[in-house]
Amino acid sequence: MKFKTLLEAVNFCNSVQYKDIDFQNEYHEFIVDGTSVGAIKNMYIGDIEQYIADRANNLPLFKVTTTTGCGNTTNVKKIVTFADWCNSRTLREHHVATFLSFMREKGCWECLKKWRDELYPIYGCKSEKDRVFLYLERAAAQVFGIRTYGVHLNGYVIDKSVKITASNPIEFSRLRGEQTKMWVAKRSNAPKKTYPGMLDQIVAGGISAGESPQSSLVRECFEEAGGIDINKSIETGKCIPAGTIQYYFEGNKLLGLQPETQYVYDVEMEPSVVPFSVDDEVESFQLLTINEILDNRLLSFEFKPNCLLVVVDFLIRHGFITASNEPEYLNIIDSLHAPLPFPGP
Amino acid sequence: MKFKTLLEAVNFCNSVQYKDIDFQNEYHEFIVDGTSVGAIKNMYIGDIEQYIADRANNLPLFKVTTTTGCGNTTNVKKIVTFADWCNSRTLREHHVATFLSFMREKGCWECLKKWRDELYPIYGCKSEKDRVFLYLERAAAQVFGIRTYGVHLNGYVIDKSVKITASNPIEFSRLRGEQTKMWVAKRSNAPKKTYPGMLDQIVAGGISAGESPQSSLVRECFEEAGGIDINKSIETGKCIPAGTIQYYFEGNKLLGLQPETQYVYDVEMEPSVVPFSVDDEVESFQLLTINEILDNRLLSFEFKPNCLLVVVDFLIRHGFITASNEPEYLNIIDSLHAPLPFPGP
Repeated sequence: MKFKTLLEAVNFCNSVQYKDIDFQNEYHEFIVDGTSVGAIKNMYIGDIEQYIADRANNLPLFKVTTTTGCGNTTNVKKIVTFADWCNSRTLREHHVATFLSFMREKGCWECLKKWRDELYPIYGCKSEKDRVFLYLERAAAQVFGIRTYGVHLNGYVIDKSVKITASNPIEFSRLRGEQTKMWVAKRSNAPKKTYPGMLDQIVAGGISAGESPQSSLVRECFEEAGGIDINKSIETGKCIPAGTIQYYFEGNKLLGLQPETQYVYDVEMEPSVVPFSVDDEVESFQLLTINEILDNRLLSFEFKPNCLLVVVDFLIRHGFITASNEPEYLNIIDSLHAPLPFPGP
Repeated sequence: MKFKTLLEAVNFCNSVQYKDIDFQNEYHEFIVDGTSVGAIKNMYIGDIEQYIADRANNLPLFKVTTTTGCGNTTNVKKIVTFADWCNSRTLREHHVATFLSFMREKGCWECLKKWRDELYPIYGCKSEKDRVFLYLERAAAQVFGIRTYGVHLNGYVIDKSVKITASNPIEFSRLRGEQTKMWVAKRSNAPKKTYPGMLDQIVAGGISAGESPQSSLVRECFEEAGGIDINKSIETGKCIPAGTIQYYFEGNKLLGLQPETQYVYDVEMEPSVVPFSVDDEVESFQLLTINEILDNRLLSFEFKPNCLLVVVDFLIRHGFITASNEPEYLNIIDSLHAPLPFPGP
């Protein structure tokens, strides 16, 4: 598979627009305490209704209903909410954990086979200081289609041995793209891994409950990529937070929606530093010139979809992809900053 | 006037959301060849209708109508389109120019008193190679509420005489904010100038018909800020395009909507270079530390509203405003990248 344009490559990941989600036929809106926080694919609803029915002696946990639309059929929406009695953070958290453990034990839902024992927050609660309605198991995030958060680190090297003495802007730009290099990770090919063999940032991962983006980054560096002293890099200003990218993704096999925000960090690395893999997520690291990435890697479907967005954002912020060399510049920037309809932290 | 939070300061400029624009009562949607390209405030409609009536011997230029809403009152919209006969770029351009000159001579519309003899494009045309439906006088952009484009240049200095040897992250961050400085322009106080006395980027301006962002930047540098050799800075990689900011603004006195995209450039300047004012737009330039900007200038309503967004975007990209020190980090980034409903170049 190849992409024809960079916009097409970016939109492979930012593939959903909230206004196009079909809450009449394909999805149920997930609402907590009056606030929309996610979208549940219909395939999960049967099991949820069965859970309610099976446990008829207990109070049902969820309500699955349809809004009337005030006489306007286009506004009719299917929704899932908590039952009225389940009205506190403690109750929601406890009973969702029980529900998900039950579904997992029953062998339901492919995604629950990747159970992490790691909790993700659902934000939007006005009465809690940290704005969290509840925490739930990370593997279930795509069941509910809730917003999730991660960190991605761009590791780059300025190779000063490449001298920039150019006689015209195009030559200059090519030399700059030869001088700047980016470390990319190749994901391991082990079975059951997501996106095996695809290219990734040097370090990336999800932000768990209670973690800040920076503490998440420090943990991920420790777990994934040896050789990078990220604490020292942060302390010396070589690693800086550089904003976020945001997208709304529906993959073919993922069977759920993923509205995601990724906190992006850039670290300028010494040419002498060679990262090495710590855990089994990464097979190898390679150092690519920006020209190699621009010419051969962006449209070739080698990057994991969301990692491509992080690379493109880096190339835009550092002046390698510009309004002069990319006709869809503005649409690409829009697509790196998708509006998400759910509240954040 | 002071802002309470940075999000409030940013949202002063990004003050409109398209979904909230009241096309039943306050605005008319401006549609060209089936494509929505702007929003016209009701105050302009009377004069447009009068122009149609006054020239009854000629074919009327515009149609002012109301959509039926398919039986659903919430979908009723007032719209302005070109009359059917005015169906080519040449016709649209010629007759809009005539119309605007007529309104100007009649003394209508405050904004036409700032006539620039400078043309702005309306994008979205599928049959034209440059996607332009028509060009029209810049001063009329806010009458039609069309999308406009500009360039802003952040000029910054790394003062290496400030040494960074800190014993903790907060101290480190403060020293970094002392080491990095930003040149800001103070707009002149001459009568009839917009935003007199407010702070601005070192160079900024609108992109005219046929200009690229970079050629617009080069022209504006020539016109506004002496001492900056922007061509050399571009050639040596000291000046780089760094993405865009985007907002939807309705000011109190501006009497129209401004959906704008600003192409952002950063230039690292030598400490020895001191810019000086070329035209009468700028009264003076001053070099502020990042700490001074963070502590005293962002909430004080000293920056011209859209220039504040450019500064905040710079501070985010360069790691001075972070998820650790700014609780509304994600909402601010969203607000720097407002989705605009109209097609671009």
